Amino acid sequence: MKSIVIHAAKDLRVEERPVETPGPGEIQIRLAAGGICGSDLHYYNHGGFGTVRLREPMVLGHEVSGYVSALGEGVTHLREGQLVAVSPSRPCGACKYCDEAMFNQCLNMRFYGSAMPFPHIQGAFREVLVAHAAQCAPADGLTAGEAAMAEPLAVCLHATKRAGPMLGESVLVTGCGPIGILSILAARRAGADLIVATDLSDFTLEMARKAGADRVIKAGPEALKDYEADKGTFDLLYECSGAAVALAGAIPALRPGATIMQLGLGGDMTLPVQAMTAKELSLKGSFRFHEEFHTGVSLMQKGLIDVKPFITHSFALDQAEEAFQTAGDREKAVKAQIIFATA
Amino acid sequence: MKSIVIHAAKDLRVEERPVETPGPGEIQIRLAAGGICGSDLHYYNHGGFGTVRLREPMVLGHEVSGYVSALGEGVTHLREGQLVAVSPSRPCGACKYCDEAMFNQCLNMRFYGSAMPFPHIQGAFREVLVAHAAQCAPADGLTAGEAAMAEPLAVCLHATKRAGPMLGESVLVTGCGPIGILSILAARRAGADLIVATDLSDFTLEMARKAGADRVIKAGPEALKDYEADKGTFDLLYECSGAAVALAGAIPALRPGATIMQLGLGGDMTLPVQAMTAKELSLKGSFRFHEEFHTGVSLMQKGLIDVKPFITHSFALDQAEEAFQTAGDREKAVKAQIIFATA
Amino acid sequence: MKSIVIHAAKDLRVEERPVETPGPGEIQIRLAAGGICGSDLHYYNHGGFGTVRLREPMVLGHEVSGYVSALGEGVTHLREGQLVAVSPSRPCGACKYCDEAMFNQCLNMRFYGSAMPFPHIQGAFREVLVAHAAQCAPADGLTAGEAAMAEPLAVCLHATKRAGPMLGESVLVTGCGPIGILSILAARRAGADLIVATDLSDFTLEMARKAGADRVIKAGPEALKDYEADKGTFDLLYECSGAAVALAGAIPALRPGATIMQLGLGGDMTLPVQAMTAKELSLKGSFRFHEEFHTGVSLMQKGLIDVKPFITHSFALDQAEEAFQTAGDREKAVKAQIIFATA
Amino acid sequence: MKSIVIHAAKDLRVEERPVETPGPGEIQIRLAAGGICGSDLHYYNHGGFGTVRLREPMVLGHEVSGYVSALGEGVTHLREGQLVAVSPSRPCGACKYCDEAMFNQCLNMRFYGSAMPFPHIQGAFREVLVAHAAQCAPADGLTAGEAAMAEPLAVCLHATKRAGPMLGESVLVTGCGPIGILSILAARRAGADLIVATDLSDFTLEMARKAGADRVIKAGPEALKDYEADKGTFDLLYECSGAAVALAGAIPALRPGATIMQLGLGGDMTLPVQAMTAKELSLKGSFRFHEEFHTGVSLMQKGLIDVKPFITHSFALDQAEEAFQTAGDREKAVKAQIIFATA
Repeated sequence: MKSIVIHAAKDLRVEERPVETPGPGEIQIRLAAGGICGSDLHYYNHGGFGTVRLREPMVLGHEVSGYVSALGEGVTHLREGQLVAVSPSRPCGACKYCDEAMFNQCLNMRFYGSAMPFPHIQGAFREVLVAHAAQCAPADGLTAGEAAMAEPLAVCLHATKRAGPMLGESVLVTGCGPIGILSILAARRAGADLIVATDLSDFTLEMARKAGADRVIKAGPEALKDYEADKGTFDLLYECSGAAVALAGAIPALRPGATIMQLGLGGDMTLPVQAMTAKELSLKGSFRFHEEFHTGVSLMQKGLIDVKPFITHSFALDQAEEAFQTAGDREKAVKAQIIFATA
Repeated sequence: MKSIVIHAAKDLRVEERPVETPGPGEIQIRLAAGGICGSDLHYYNHGGFGTVRLREPMVLGHEVSGYVSALGEGVTHLREGQLVAVSPSRPCGACKYCDEAMFNQCLNMRFYGSAMPFPHIQGAFREVLVAHAAQCAPADGLTAGEAAMAEPLAVCLHATKRAGPMLGESVLVTGCGPIGILSILAARRAGADLIVATDLSDFTLEMARKAGADRVIKAGPEALKDYEADKGTFDLLYECSGAAVALAGAIPALRPGATIMQLGLGGDMTLPVQAMTAKELSLKGSFRFHEEFHTGVSLMQKGLIDVKPFITHSFALDQAEEAFQTAGDREKAVKAQIIFATA
Repeated sequence: MKSIVIHAAKDLRVEERPVETPGPGEIQIRLAAGGICGSDLHYYNHGGFGTVRLREPMVLGHEVSGYVSALGEGVTHLREGQLVAVSPSRPCGACKYCDEAMFNQCLNMRFYGSAMPFPHIQGAFREVLVAHAAQCAPADGLTAGEAAMAEPLAVCLHATKRAGPMLGESVLVTGCGPIGILSILAARRAGADLIVATDLSDFTLEMARKAGADRVIKAGPEALKDYEADKGTFDLLYECSGAAVALAGAIPALRPGATIMQLGLGGDMTLPVQAMTAKELSLKGSFRFHEEFHTGVSLMQKGLIDVKPFITHSFALDQAEEAFQTAGDREKAVKAQIIFATA
Repeated sequence: MKSIVIHAAKDLRVEERPVETPGPGEIQIRLAAGGICGSDLHYYNHGGFGTVRLREPMVLGHEVSGYVSALGEGVTHLREGQLVAVSPSRPCGACKYCDEAMFNQCLNMRFYGSAMPFPHIQGAFREVLVAHAAQCAPADGLTAGEAAMAEPLAVCLHATKRAGPMLGESVLVTGCGPIGILSILAARRAGADLIVATDLSDFTLEMARKAGADRVIKAGPEALKDYEADKGTFDLLYECSGAAVALAGAIPALRPGATIMQLGLGGDMTLPVQAMTAKELSLKGSFRFHEEFHTGVSLMQKGLIDVKPFITHSFALDQAEEAFQTAGDREKAVKAQIIFATA
């Protein structure tokens, strides 16, 4: 079977790998769709990010869906041919954080396509994938592309849960890439009232409006001045750009006591901590997800969250390189996916 | 002008009252629509409820909307002819609970149409109403009927905020009168996943499904048995029936740690406290609302909550008695409203 | 070895049972002290409580400490002769609630001395006990009696965590048996400001004062009238009597939004739900504990909680029956313990 | 009367000002003790901090207590000669944040001794002070020095409330100046279990131990390595140094999901946001206080918090300059106070 393997920055290859067979509790999946994430792009463009660097070839990919092609022993709640969304999160179930149900902090996590431990955790962009049944959410009624959106959606649902009360709140989103767009959908689904989004790209802002933002604003020095009176307007900021300037620029528009969900990955950031303290802001990290993966699939199945308009590009497996180039172009792409197979 | 006045159980009269003019900070409103609430029905059918009893004639009504007919001095953010939803909540702004921003617990509350203090607080079912501008939410884009739904909707939004996290939660609603129906809409808006509703009436259950319940079940001894395995399913119960049997019957279907929002008014109730304690359930009261009134209007204006299908009946002012009789019929009515004027 | 076995109401026997040897991960303990709990008393006096009934002889006891007498394979963090407090809580570690870290809701819990499943879970009142090392908290520096108080203390610490913010709060405790007394200690430790306690017994109230209550009041119809003005005073009620009249009588003294921690076991209770709802009270169950067991031992070791004054009686194993009779006498006992061995 | 007035950096003068008489609702106070705060020191040493700069002479001081010398009209709950702790916080009571009971975020705050608005808000270091009765907490049973500690204690109690659950938590304190020391007292009072403190000064660490820290550690690169295994130990960090290096250095010792209370004033800080995000840390600002002022006085009166050992120096009014020099010396002073009068 073919896999998409990164060897070094800009050295992406479609390679043969052996097909695996499912053991007890596992299933074999004929991969259908795989979305390209920002971290995939970092490996592709830069060979890593921050202190996380490629040290050996690694199969990329962790946003995937597929059709069940074989059931391992003891798997009874899935059936052959069924579409499943596959969670890339594989906590060990035995460490202290798993014991405390903080699975996303597992000490032995094997998240698909991560160069963090060595040997690296190989990813899911391969024609045939073997996964634990518990990783798989039945996705009947969804398209394969939607099912593959369950992963980034889960990231945003997890952040939304961590953000606290949402019903009737005023929300600002800085940075409208895929995570920003899905944060708008998540905030709207969770009951936000006013949603304002900023970005540098007109295309992206148009998408933000389509996702439900009440107002979209070109990022810049005066962008949020309408919201700065009387110590600010927004109860919540989803910071999805990873740029310190975006976070700092948003602070005057945040109400005292507001929450900042930091989703953008920005390494070290220089922040106006004194201003943040005086307003009693809370800056909260959010990292991956756990049960929100299944929640997202269910909400999509009920039509309560619609991600389809944001799958802007689909490429064949042989076009993998073009897919990666497109995925990073914020003037035309939200989410680019690779189609491994069709039903 | 005409008002709808209750004199005693079953003694409802349409009477003349003098028109008032607005003082500073007030507005005069030509009333458009008025919804009949369960407490209005209690006055009509029984002359009160629990220890709250009528002791003098009282204008009924607290779910109202209307058109601005005159602006008092200093009111600048509203305009003549504009549709407004009028909040019946008038806290004093000076007592210890107002100081703590717990306005719905104001020691001197003058909530429209309440027999609780004496002299009673006269209600809002009158052709011309004078109200503080701060009570009025601009309702441009809504119908008068929708605007009059802002009050019961606010009750359910307040309960939903008090309920805690909702995104992805499993919700049970017992009792699908207007408060049950609006609780379904509120829970859905706030991100609930599974919503199951029970009631004794087929009509009401059909309405619950229309409101977005995933499954509706005729209330009865075995009604929830599908949800009782492994200590239960639901994270949250909106108890909207006020019947102890409904609350007690739901407990085996609630997960350990679940929350019960008690919205039904049931006086004293005999509850299985030991079972509730063993599961570590939380039974939370919810009472009226405050800022949720404006939130509800805004969410309706954005099309994020649609109450229109649940305004099942509209009556002319002269049909007030028929309106009250219809409003209490759970086999055909969700919300019955009286139309005082049209735009 | 000798064990304390209940055969039926009032039929308590000291019987021989075989000594067990510790397997891997286990330790053998020479039991030192065992406290008599309210549930032990229910078995002794009534053969059970509510629907929980004795159906076969059962070793009683779940509040115990002892000296390590043998270490099973792989146990390295304990040493022979060391005093340990033994938690009676033995969740399975594999059910859905254990997976979610809700260990006190384990579907297969084997809590010492419980008649709930059948065959019953045998208790810990035996001269030699084999337990998992993870159940045992090293209790160096404590007396054996204090160490045996870790269990009821954990119950109250768990309730205190569930109660929410405590620093500076006003607290009412109704019912000052052992759980009431330990709730006072826990609330004080967690930062409560005003603490008021009520009970019917003068001795018990004297003990409540010794535990740190600012004021103690004989329970009765007018007992709390000083605290009822302006909708009430207390942010939190620990209801430790299990009497509906105590709970209902406290409601006028609770502030709007207050929390009621229900610790007393009262079966069905008739409650003024409408009054509770109008004040937006939260009635929360609390059931056993988990990590609070180790917390309590640590806080006692640091001298931050002192339970010694409340161990009012110690009996030899041969005086078991007298110990049970004394334990239930609220005019002279808080906690009665049985001494199985000394260091 | 004499006042302590700052004219510019290092230009501190004891000057005459006119005595004021109390209006309705006010009291006149013969000042007893005044503690020197870090912000007073910033004005003294640097003429301000960050963007806050002296532009005109300003009476310093906001940590004060005194004896009631005259009662204005309508003040009945205080008596002449009574010791009171005086809160420096004077919110307007009418702005949007006061309406929402977020008094510490008042848009028109007149906090004693602040150069932030212009004209500056004059401070409380004056022999005779007129204040609103509501600012004054009766402090019977305390020394004047203790009563003057109510203000910095309130800062730490407010932070402790904002920190969330504390019972049984593991706490790290970085920086053991007065705010660090009082944070240790507050955390201990609120139920913390393990408390570890770091600082550069041996004297300060000795004081931290006296305040109740279980372990004190000289700050430095390897200082916290005992706590870094398995993603860290501490549930909570009180960052009281204002140094980015202290905050960043503590992150490996914080458990996933931990909270950082930022109390040190550090202007812009460069923070390892990616590491903070991966661990899902929450960085929360805390600013001043409100009702915690009265809580602190009450807890001191009950002997539940003892600040006396940390009032290391007392100076006569004529020694004001020496007092300021001593207050900033972390090798010998925790809190230095000026004595304006004795009982």
